[in-house]
Amino acid sequence: MVVSHNPSELVTAVASGDRRALARLITLVEESGAGANEALRLAFEAAQPAHRIGITGAPGAGKSTLTDRLISMAREQGESIAVLAVDPTSPFSGGAVLGDRVRMQDHILDSGVYIRSMASRGHLGGLSVAAPKALVAMEAGGFDRILIETVGVGQDEVEVTSAADTVLVVLTPGWGDGVQAAKAGILEIGDLFIVNKADRPGVRDTVADLRSMLALGGEPAWEPPIIETTAYSGSGVEEVWEAVERHGAHLGEAGLEARRRSRRRAELTTALTVRINDRVMGSLAAGAGAELAAAVEQGAIDPWTAADQMEGI
Amino acid sequence: MVVSHNPSELVTAVASGDRRALARLITLVEESGAGANEALRLAFEAAQPAHRIGITGAPGAGKSTLTDRLISMAREQGESIAVLAVDPTSPFSGGAVLGDRVRMQDHILDSGVYIRSMASRGHLGGLSVAAPKALVAMEAGGFDRILIETVGVGQDEVEVTSAADTVLVVLTPGWGDGVQAAKAGILEIGDLFIVNKADRPGVRDTVADLRSMLALGGEPAWEPPIIETTAYSGSGVEEVWEAVERHGAHLGEAGLEARRRSRRRAELTTALTVRINDRVMGSLAAGAGAELAAAVEQGAIDPWTAADQMEGI
Repeated sequence: MVVSHNPSELVTAVASGDRRALARLITLVEESGAGANEALRLAFEAAQPAHRIGITGAPGAGKSTLTDRLISMAREQGESIAVLAVDPTSPFSGGAVLGDRVRMQDHILDSGVYIRSMASRGHLGGLSVAAPKALVAMEAGGFDRILIETVGVGQDEVEVTSAADTVLVVLTPGWGDGVQAAKAGILEIGDLFIVNKADRPGVRDTVADLRSMLALGGEPAWEPPIIETTAYSGSGVEEVWEAVERHGAHLGEAGLEARRRSRRRAELTTALTVRINDRVMGSLAAGAGAELAAAVEQGAIDPWTAADQMEGI
Repeated sequence: MVVSHNPSELVTAVASGDRRALARLITLVEESGAGANEALRLAFEAAQPAHRIGITGAPGAGKSTLTDRLISMAREQGESIAVLAVDPTSPFSGGAVLGDRVRMQDHILDSGVYIRSMASRGHLGGLSVAAPKALVAMEAGGFDRILIETVGVGQDEVEVTSAADTVLVVLTPGWGDGVQAAKAGILEIGDLFIVNKADRPGVRDTVADLRSMLALGGEPAWEPPIIETTAYSGSGVEEVWEAVERHGAHLGEAGLEARRRSRRRAELTTALTVRINDRVMGSLAAGAGAELAAAVEQGAIDPWTAADQMEGI
């Protein structure tokens, strides 16, 4: 079967459960131009908002294995699930480090599972631009849950978790104590903390550190549970899935809709910023803007004064 | 002595070596408004470009101790040195995690050393906006070297290193192997790799991993050295400082000026983007822009189509 390149036919196919069409749609919405915009508009109309689950944590914490286990949990419950796996792209190696993804191939023949990798570099404007578009395309596919797995704990990764309704933060005993987690700024974003590789030494200390750091946050309506797992054996994973479901129920339809509203507004701001950045780049490429840019490069004028002098952008 | 708030007097005082005036100047240039712009322009004119040394690596790798040691090395050579220490600010704790900084108080009575912390959050536009301004203010103080120490290995931290001429990447045997370094995207940015805590087990493996990963990069004009250190005892630190000096000499005046040119251009782009973002926010706050934003929040129109429909921004 040939997958249509026509946005309308493509979105119709995606909504009917065609996973090859979904792959094509995600690629299309990530592009720029009239076709991409039209596809995005139609995907947005067709989208059935899913419960979005973000998974973040330091590299090597076992997020991929955990994601793999959570996919199996969803499937056992008869739920369909899509995964957006944000992989780092290294300009050094020229491609994503894909090793971790290999085990997900187990799910490749299951039409209730869709897995898509997205490189964390090379997207105009970063992940905060590209990820929401891919997620809207996925929602047009009508999945019950969407997992968003990020690789690191940098600002970009933290931003991506803002696209999720429920955020899982994965730590390991070996990674460091609660202070390191605080430094990485990930205590604030977690709805659920997972101490993975719980068969390693130091797990008690990490859980205790984490509990005392979280206690400093006062008395929120939702007290983030701390769950010990050994993802490779599956130990604790059921408890994680139950906590995810509990958090979804805690949010409720009103809570989810509130998150969606604030996300849509953030996406509008991002979309406007991208358009305006394009204009900035254009204005520096020729004419008076290019002359001013050359003067800045030479150090004849400081960048901030030059920015104030630029008109019509 | 009262420190002047007049930009011109302030910059003159900074250029004459007044460190209290420098503290005030950095605070001023980080603000917005006419006074800040004027101060920035004057600081840029007075700036004597220093050799900028960036230090990055995972939390807990020992960057603060190493920074402390490098300050002492510079002082032994009779060089003045300023440090911009980028600390994470947690919205959770409401302030920077300052524990690591305490030991730097040893240098507090030495006028040849100036240390300034900068929170990694809460800056409009992020570190890439705030750090270059603070660095220009420091350069108006006429230091021989400037150290830029970042806390993590996220995208934001990697961006900050673009403000440096020589980038030191600090790893530890415990932190992980070369694959983790590749994942974090830090192999590309290092001019010099330091395996700190070299008294711990696993140091040979980490060095070997690193060497093989770096070898994949081909044959650059500068082959990044890998140096084992134990920063708390000072072992290997002299070798680090020699390598820093060697890299500075390798770049030469032409190489340094080329880096400065591309930095100035990047700062212009950032400054323009900040101004335009301000305009975007303004346009969404009232009138037709606010109406469109409300429609987006409600899901009546998708964010990308709405962005296309917005005029006059």
